[in-house]
Amino acid sequence: MRAIFAVLMAVFFLSSSSAQTRPLSLMPMPASVQMKTGQLVIDPSFTVGIQGHSDAFLQRAVGIFLDNLGRQTGIPQLDMKIIDAAQARLVIHCERSSKAVQELGEDESYSLVIGATRVKLDAVTTLGIMRGLQTFLQMVQTTSDGFAVSAIAIQDTPRFPWRGLMIDVSRHFIPLDVLKRNLDGMAAVKLNVFHWHLSDNQGFRVESKKFPKLQEMGSDRQYYTQDDVRDLIAYARDRGIRVVPEFDMPGHSTAWFVGYPELASAPGPYQIERKWGIFDPAMDPTQERTYKFLDTFIGEMAKLFPDQFFHIGGDELNGKQWDANPNIQAFMRAHGMKNNQDLQAYFNTRVQTIVSKHGKTMVGWDEILRPDLPKDIVVQSWRGQDSLAAAAKLGYRGLLSFGYYVDLNWPASRHYAIDPISGAAANLSPEEKQRILGGEACMWSEYVSPENIDSRLWPRTAAIAERLWSQQDLTDVHSMYQRLQGVSRWLDWLGLTHTSNYDPMLRRVAGSNDISALRTFTDVVEPVKDYTREEIAAAEATSLAPLNRVIDAARPESETARRFTDLVSALIAGQADADAKQEIAMWLSRWRDNQAKLQPLENQSFLLQEIIPLSQDLSAVAVTGLQALDYVIRGERAPDSWTAEQFALLQEAEKPKAQLLLMVAPAVQKLVEASSAPKAPPPQ
Amino acid sequence: MRAIFAVLMAVFFLSSSSAQTRPLSLMPMPASVQMKTGQLVIDPSFTVGIQGHSDAFLQRAVGIFLDNLGRQTGIPQLDMKIIDAAQARLVIHCERSSKAVQELGEDESYSLVIGATRVKLDAVTTLGIMRGLQTFLQMVQTTSDGFAVSAIAIQDTPRFPWRGLMIDVSRHFIPLDVLKRNLDGMAAVKLNVFHWHLSDNQGFRVESKKFPKLQEMGSDRQYYTQDDVRDLIAYARDRGIRVVPEFDMPGHSTAWFVGYPELASAPGPYQIERKWGIFDPAMDPTQERTYKFLDTFIGEMAKLFPDQFFHIGGDELNGKQWDANPNIQAFMRAHGMKNNQDLQAYFNTRVQTIVSKHGKTMVGWDEILRPDLPKDIVVQSWRGQDSLAAAAKLGYRGLLSFGYYVDLNWPASRHYAIDPISGAAANLSPEEKQRILGGEACMWSEYVSPENIDSRLWPRTAAIAERLWSQQDLTDVHSMYQRLQGVSRWLDWLGLTHTSNYDPMLRRVAGSNDISALRTFTDVVEPVKDYTREEIAAAEATSLAPLNRVIDAARPESETARRFTDLVSALIAGQADADAKQEIAMWLSRWRDNQAKLQPLENQSFLLQEIIPLSQDLSAVAVTGLQALDYVIRGERAPDSWTAEQFALLQEAEKPKAQLLLMVAPAVQKLVEASSAPKAPPPQ
Repeated sequence: MRAIFAVLMAVFFLSSSSAQTRPLSLMPMPASVQMKTGQLVIDPSFTVGIQGHSDAFLQRAVGIFLDNLGRQTGIPQLDMKIIDAAQARLVIHCERSSKAVQELGEDESYSLVIGATRVKLDAVTTLGIMRGLQTFLQMVQTTSDGFAVSAIAIQDTPRFPWRGLMIDVSRHFIPLDVLKRNLDGMAAVKLNVFHWHLSDNQGFRVESKKFPKLQEMGSDRQYYTQDDVRDLIAYARDRGIRVVPEFDMPGHSTAWFVGYPELASAPGPYQIERKWGIFDPAMDPTQERTYKFLDTFIGEMAKLFPDQFFHIGGDELNGKQWDANPNIQAFMRAHGMKNNQDLQAYFNTRVQTIVSKHGKTMVGWDEILRPDLPKDIVVQSWRGQDSLAAAAKLGYRGLLSFGYYVDLNWPASRHYAIDPISGAAANLSPEEKQRILGGEACMWSEYVSPENIDSRLWPRTAAIAERLWSQQDLTDVHSMYQRLQGVSRWLDWLGLTHTSNYDPMLRRVAGSNDISALRTFTDVVEPVKDYTREEIAAAEATSLAPLNRVIDAARPESETARRFTDLVSALIAGQADADAKQEIAMWLSRWRDNQAKLQPLENQSFLLQEIIPLSQDLSAVAVTGLQALDYVIRGERAPDSWTAEQFALLQEAEKPKAQLLLMVAPAVQKLVEASSAPKAPPPQ
Repeated sequence: MRAIFAVLMAVFFLSSSSAQTRPLSLMPMPASVQMKTGQLVIDPSFTVGIQGHSDAFLQRAVGIFLDNLGRQTGIPQLDMKIIDAAQARLVIHCERSSKAVQELGEDESYSLVIGATRVKLDAVTTLGIMRGLQTFLQMVQTTSDGFAVSAIAIQDTPRFPWRGLMIDVSRHFIPLDVLKRNLDGMAAVKLNVFHWHLSDNQGFRVESKKFPKLQEMGSDRQYYTQDDVRDLIAYARDRGIRVVPEFDMPGHSTAWFVGYPELASAPGPYQIERKWGIFDPAMDPTQERTYKFLDTFIGEMAKLFPDQFFHIGGDELNGKQWDANPNIQAFMRAHGMKNNQDLQAYFNTRVQTIVSKHGKTMVGWDEILRPDLPKDIVVQSWRGQDSLAAAAKLGYRGLLSFGYYVDLNWPASRHYAIDPISGAAANLSPEEKQRILGGEACMWSEYVSPENIDSRLWPRTAAIAERLWSQQDLTDVHSMYQRLQGVSRWLDWLGLTHTSNYDPMLRRVAGSNDISALRTFTDVVEPVKDYTREEIAAAEATSLAPLNRVIDAARPESETARRFTDLVSALIAGQADADAKQEIAMWLSRWRDNQAKLQPLENQSFLLQEIIPLSQDLSAVAVTGLQALDYVIRGERAPDSWTAEQFALLQEAEKPKAQLLLMVAPAVQKLVEASSAPKAPPPQ
């Protein structure tokens, strides 16, 4: 398969040089793509017909598809266009229904053949049809002849059966409509599991009828009713997405204890946690009442959430409440437990029995793994592929989330480079490898609000989706970024706000409609990475802190900085043409002049004041860059004294300020390095 | 009042020169505004307390307010901040509930006094509190000290009790969520009537349980269920907005006849109308079965829609079916009716009896007015103030919609200049003037979709809202436009898409993310005005035509063109400083170079091809402008031959192309005129 694939890829991208079409933005890239000649125009006469098996679920899927095609093209009322298959432009053939409750490992493969007059989409199940319809939508291009799809033959099937996105709705509540639009985004890139992190120290987000104080006292009135949950699950189901709930225990559970302090290992009273971090409160694993409560609660939730899998969290227990409780210590001694890990293992075993009793399969984070648990549980690894491999060797199934934490503001390329079957996992036996089910992008929500969550998720999550769907040897970062742009445009039409909320947030920061200089600045900065934000400013690290600063609007990955960096790399490699050189100079000039343009606004807004130093850095760095560019283009070697000065300046400019990083500084650094290198004649 | 008002206005705008604050964007302008010193900072500690009367309705209003304040500032969980009034930052005092079903003429006045530590909002009714809360939201500014409201004392009351927006959901269906966000927009500018135009030739949009074929056969499955209707009415109620349904009859009713051809004056069968215009089908006013049907139907709808008023349309009957039907002709002769107007009057009288029997007051368009109808009906005038005055003289109440058709793509200033009490209405007696209840902006939906309706409504509708709320002598267009920008920014945060959908639509047109040149072009064009689009291209004038062209993205009013025109006017008046001159030259240079930048995209997209001629015009006009600017600045008189050539070029450029107008051409025309005028020494 691989050899064929490589050949097809070449053909695939060659087509981009045609006058009629542009590079396709298929993402995730299908397993096999064969370009053909010609295209099929999509106009108001477009129709769909269903052959073979049909059911209400398939018909809704086609309805959603037509609605999306309408949004994408602006052609109205396409949703009325389901007709007899003999006349239809797009003919769907499906062998059988997918399961009423979607299951892990159902067949999602499909075949999509586009000819000049007809399209054939075949799949074994409705799920496969859904995936193929998404591919079709990604094929639609604006051409000189109208909206059109290029003739093509695609055979496609996912590499992993579990391709998820976790959203933490505890640290910041995310309303149902925001989740729904992000489910649309997930479906667009063929993700198939929504992992709903529903409880944590900062909030308990689901209505329990058995234990109503959970949501009444633990949620600030921000929770989903059971009707909301059913509504969301139905919405996800219609998009081929499973919904796995997570109730984190025995740690990460302060919000439970506000209403039910008797569950905790210390007396309380408890309040909803407002800060970020790891906290002491933990369930008391030595009391039978804890398991009685959990039995009733899990029983209730097992009915509400139809998916086979049930996530119990299990991560980051600091054990302090256990250490401090003499009854717990006595219990541990009496049962020969050497440490808190032993006690947590006992808790997990008890909880697993309850989960299993209610017909579910337990999932938990790395920490739950102990060889005494039954082999049907699933381990989700935030620690890495080695941990995953260890679990697989013990016979456990696993999911990778290490490297897929999208809240850490990494570039898409860094997530893209991480593969579930690498490191120690690469050396597993084929049977062991089968136990690695896939992975999940994770959005922990310390610093996201309904306003900016989309921009933290998209388009980068699409790169992870491709990693989990497409073949392992698909690693061309340039192609990935190119296709990501198409995906981003497409998500706009679906109603995601990753692009559209940027300007309104900047207008709030500026307190004015005049944001061109602020946008120029914000376009080239990124939030600090990993957990640096929390570390730098613990004081604002609470769930009540406004998320209205430049850092909250700034994109996790600066497209402008990436482009500029690419241009500079090309220049230094001697591969920049006159246009590229002009563009480098254009950017640098704009940045040089930007601080002067931003300055008049600064006194108007408290939210602008913190960025002044970095804005000054940007202008200073741009001056350096222009000088270095001049040296490089003239092939002259910069004086050492000048170079030393610039390095000092750049070192200062690369320090985070206002928790932001100046992403064009490293490229300017390279320019300075190039200008100070011993000179051969200038590369042309 | 007027003299005091003028003085206060001066103070009001002087405050804009302070370093701390910017001009307030209050819109509609309150009746009386008195600026004070100091400000109150809005931060996470902000709280609200309710004194005096309280009820669930008021509490919801405060909840919505806090939610909006949270969106506007990015401060989370403000919605939890209702506390004891003694400690609260904002203290609300309300005397009594407003009516359970909102009524015409309820007290909406309020007093808002902002001090440095406390805010007092007083009103007689909950409705007044709602209006005052909106004013408070408009006071919130980004300042150097944080979000803040300036100290101020406002006394406010509306000029007219009926301030409406009509949306036609028949010609294009507008989904419930889109209507809801536009209700938020209405509430923001204190509009208080949503007039829901629910049926027309192109669609019947409400579920009738009595006559289900109305929606089943007349709506393409695009209609509101009765639950949807109740949901929307509750949503509107919580925002102080009445909902008046319109079922247009006896004309504009083809969609009824698809399911019930027996209602029509010709046998049928009928199909949903796809074209725009006035059509022949009309109800048969001579058959008792028509009234029997309407009695049942109106009875059902009168229960569904609780508002006192019920709109029966009554406009634009062409009478052709009546003329052609011998039975109808015989009926007219038998009853001594001279013409179709007489027959329609008979129909209206019968319908009025039915509407009245179901407890409602009838509203209709101009055409319904005949002195034999009871005096409690309301006439909505699309014909003008004279027609309104004639009705008032006869004792009828009236609403102005003439001049407020926002679908005609007029500039805000033109709507703003139209006053219900002007023309013949200005000469009415005070008692007669009282009968003019206000007016309604109207959005007929031939060329709007869920995607672009917001941009056709906002921010221009805010100018009409101000005309209907604020004092008649408030006519400063410059101030109106300045404040409109603030309103626009604010509507963004509420979730309206008038700004945010612009770029995604342009990306669709371009088929690419690279839209800077297309945006430069689209920023300076406007759709043709009035009914020109329909007249120019009758072929595409159907409800099935895609609304995805540049004209559908282009804004009804170009802000860039207005700014450029202002700059040119200042230059010609000798009032332009160096910055202004530089800005004129900057714009002209950008436009001159734009066609070269747009050109590479043009072959990629069928949607771009129609704008090529106008894009070429823009560049040519800019070259002319640069030359003329040069003459004007140098104080030189341009040669007559050059001038003649430019006039010819401009005349060509001012012709609509692709149904778009080049809005900067007239300003360049002025520059050319100025450059060819006999010269005094150049103004400095």
